[in-house]
Amino acid sequence: MTAILILGVDPGLNRCGWGLIVSEGSRLSHVAHGVIKPPQQQQLASRLHDLFEGLSAVIEQYQPTEAAVEETFVNSNARAALALGQARGVALAAAARRGLAVAEYAPTTIKKAVVGSGAADKNQVAFMVQRLLPAAGPVTADAADALGIALCHAAHGGFRRRAGAWGTHRH
Amino acid sequence: MTAILILGVDPGLNRCGWGLIVSEGSRLSHVAHGVIKPPQQQQLASRLHDLFEGLSAVIEQYQPTEAAVEETFVNSNARAALALGQARGVALAAAARRGLAVAEYAPTTIKKAVVGSGAADKNQVAFMVQRLLPAAGPVTADAADALGIALCHAAHGGFRRRAGAWGTHRH
Repeated sequence: MTAILILGVDPGLNRCGWGLIVSEGSRLSHVAHGVIKPPQQQQLASRLHDLFEGLSAVIEQYQPTEAAVEETFVNSNARAALALGQARGVALAAAARRGLAVAEYAPTTIKKAVVGSGAADKNQVAFMVQRLLPAAGPVTADAADALGIALCHAAHGGFRRRAGAWGTHRH
Repeated sequence: MTAILILGVDPGLNRCGWGLIVSEGSRLSHVAHGVIKPPQQQQLASRLHDLFEGLSAVIEQYQPTEAAVEETFVNSNARAALALGQARGVALAAAARRGLAVAEYAPTTIKKAVVGSGAADKNQVAFMVQRLLPAAGPVTADAADALGIALCHAAHGGFRRRAGAWGTHRH
């Protein structure tokens, strides 16, 4: 049984959560998690660079084999979509730069994988993340979301068990 | 009179235009321009990574001293804003990674600087870019926009002539 080290990322310009888990067969274990917070008083380009460097450092340190992010559904707020897009683009580029394939999962898919219901709220996701990964200890909301994304990727068997999954990586 | 080498960038996921000019006093000269086109059949993360690497290579090769991008005004299309945001975030991070300060200019500011009117259309901008930079030769629309952004930054004197301009770089 091959162990895969999965990096989950919850992109954001002010707070970018990340979480690392190992999936080995049906066994899941917590490795690390954190939140990257680029100083808000900096210029936008510098903050995006901080985010890029922060995620690159995590990838460099832990050498994950696969990565996953939440698929973004845009609502009517175009300004928020632009801001999130900027952070998300940087996160995806940082992962791809290290040769990581990045899976994208819809929010309902993540909730269903972690909690069992696509209609679960954020508190339920955080609760189940801590139940499934007790070694994580207390986890902030951003890191819990990132760990939840990694758990979802593990529940879907990662890339290796899915035939032809290297194309679009969307679920 | 110090010469400044200005990189203008017009971010986009399918086509990212870039243009380099030298500004020395009132003299402007064309250095290079191009368009980065990440293959559309690739995974999103790979395309964003191609964009990051492409812009990083341009910065590495030419070593610009300052950079400028168009300030993005979002309309009601949140999906387009997300897509543009992803490309824009990568472009800003690539510039900041090389220590480049990045100025942002509103579209009307760019048009006014290049054409003399904030209501000018894209064809007028392209026409004036070729008039101001005859050595550029025929320029595609994306590269013309990027050169126009660089010209706007030159017209505003770059960063060095503006006291206290290192804060937000918005105009």
